[in-house]
Amino acid sequence: MTADRHPDPAFWAGKRVVVTGGAGFLGSGLCHALGALGARVTAIDALLPGMGGRRANLEGSGAELVVADLREADLAPVLAGADIVFNMAAQISHAGSMADPFSDLAINATAQLRLIAALREAAPGAVVVHASTRQFYGRAQRLPVDEAHPVVPPDFNGVSKFAGEQYWMVEHRVHGRPVVSLRLTNCYGPRLRIADARQMFLGIWIRRVLEGEPFELWGGEQMRDLAYLDDVVSAFLLAAETPGCAGRVFNLGGDAPLALRRLAEMLVAANGGQGRFVVREFPPERRAIDIGSYAADDTAFRAATGWAPRVPLPEGLARTLAFFRPRLTPFLQDAA
Amino acid sequence: MTADRHPDPAFWAGKRVVVTGGAGFLGSGLCHALGALGARVTAIDALLPGMGGRRANLEGSGAELVVADLREADLAPVLAGADIVFNMAAQISHAGSMADPFSDLAINATAQLRLIAALREAAPGAVVVHASTRQFYGRAQRLPVDEAHPVVPPDFNGVSKFAGEQYWMVEHRVHGRPVVSLRLTNCYGPRLRIADARQMFLGIWIRRVLEGEPFELWGGEQMRDLAYLDDVVSAFLLAAETPGCAGRVFNLGGDAPLALRRLAEMLVAANGGQGRFVVREFPPERRAIDIGSYAADDTAFRAATGWAPRVPLPEGLARTLAFFRPRLTPFLQDAA
Repeated sequence: MTADRHPDPAFWAGKRVVVTGGAGFLGSGLCHALGALGARVTAIDALLPGMGGRRANLEGSGAELVVADLREADLAPVLAGADIVFNMAAQISHAGSMADPFSDLAINATAQLRLIAALREAAPGAVVVHASTRQFYGRAQRLPVDEAHPVVPPDFNGVSKFAGEQYWMVEHRVHGRPVVSLRLTNCYGPRLRIADARQMFLGIWIRRVLEGEPFELWGGEQMRDLAYLDDVVSAFLLAAETPGCAGRVFNLGGDAPLALRRLAEMLVAANGGQGRFVVREFPPERRAIDIGSYAADDTAFRAATGWAPRVPLPEGLARTLAFFRPRLTPFLQDAA
Repeated sequence: MTADRHPDPAFWAGKRVVVTGGAGFLGSGLCHALGALGARVTAIDALLPGMGGRRANLEGSGAELVVADLREADLAPVLAGADIVFNMAAQISHAGSMADPFSDLAINATAQLRLIAALREAAPGAVVVHASTRQFYGRAQRLPVDEAHPVVPPDFNGVSKFAGEQYWMVEHRVHGRPVVSLRLTNCYGPRLRIADARQMFLGIWIRRVLEGEPFELWGGEQMRDLAYLDDVVSAFLLAAETPGCAGRVFNLGGDAPLALRRLAEMLVAANGGQGRFVVREFPPERRAIDIGSYAADDTAFRAATGWAPRVPLPEGLARTLAFFRPRLTPFLQDAA
């Protein structure tokens, strides 16, 4: 596969695409890219408070928004005739899963079974690209982490997200549906939820920096490999375009791993040196579910698709701050 | 640890023990053993049709039966003061999970979260021994299968059972509860469900042999390592007695692996040569979820507890047939 491959507009023109969680951070990013590529896009989103879904995220994308909850909506009419489904809807807050594991399971597993059943009826041949997570590997037993790393969920969210992914893989193995699962590392960029740290810790950092307030760095020595929105979107598009991906799970990383203390410094630098942070001990309830350092081994996905990340961290942070600077207030309010 | 260790009556005398799924095959076997060891035993069972739970299974055990469904009952009063919980309640039919994955998930995962929450309230220090399964390893990538084997569920049941086990392991890691999970191979013996093959294929074989009818052998070359009830019960008791087991998952095997064709011949021999079987191709819907050959590597559990299986297959089959021969009719009716 050619290295540094781009999504192919000829593949996407006229394709009927459904994006679950389509008004959220990654989902809306996909909708914008798909619109630009000429696809006909329907976003499904429940616009649940605190989950990152916002109507405004889809403005200018050309996507149709269907407000529906995968846990209870009649999904078949929305899915009818879909060629490709990007399955981005999820409860992804780790702390949230510990506080309410029932909703976490209902969204990440039970609702996935509903979607699987509806797709059998409405779009039996549709390709599914599922948004999965590195979370269920737990504390890395070796770095970088490849797909054969043991699954040792550190929290209830890791359990439910693994179950949801594996339901899709069973659907592939038993019923032959083309399914690809991408196990994401921390993703950031425009339309990230920044009201709080529910989507990722960088969200609240960005908010604090733009508000001129100090942000909190918990620990600081743990390593992470952040992926910029545009690179993640390209990965999902290429996964759908590449028949050889069907039936496989892939790790997806980003730029080179770095310590969070260095990331904090880079964020301040990307804000023109304006901003500061204070280093804190982990709160005990977060320490209990923290995974320590992580870095993805995504060589399998690169080899299968020709994908490579293009946006270095300093540039991605600068672009993200530039996006939010004039839009801070609306992003601090919940979905509407 | 001493090899060939026995459960210690001094440990069990007066212990307050709760057995979920306590009127089922393995659950009732535990209740009988616990009663003999002097424990005070409460069995919780929903007596759901087709699941193997029968009031009559507990006759003579001394256990109190609480008819309750883990998906909806108020569990805290039943669990109050428990020292040890044997968590045997599950939906275990592979084909059943494909036909109704929602019930399968509700019983094997959502209900486990309810049990976890109720135990925090009612018995914060209770030891939990969880009945897990080799099923989620899927088709063995190497034999025998140890606990580091990848998790590749072949069916929806494998997904839900892994989720349920991992919820318990997270509860251990985050909240410190002593939890042991035993990943069982095919188990057989008195009180196995024999009306059909829902609990295991050997159930319907036993029924047919005792009815004087031929039974069906699907395939025949695939290998299995069957575990006799008494050995499985000893394993659960020793797991609870052994503090070093807390926080660990263990495979549990049985007698030496053999091809199912050989097992079929042994069953007929154990019935005094009375009985016959016909070899059939797998039905397509079963072929799609079949795991092929399996044999457990249970050296970790043997090393941790001193457990070893004692009942060879010919003896176990003879004992099982002797149990069912005078009781065939009641075991063909559903729970009551």
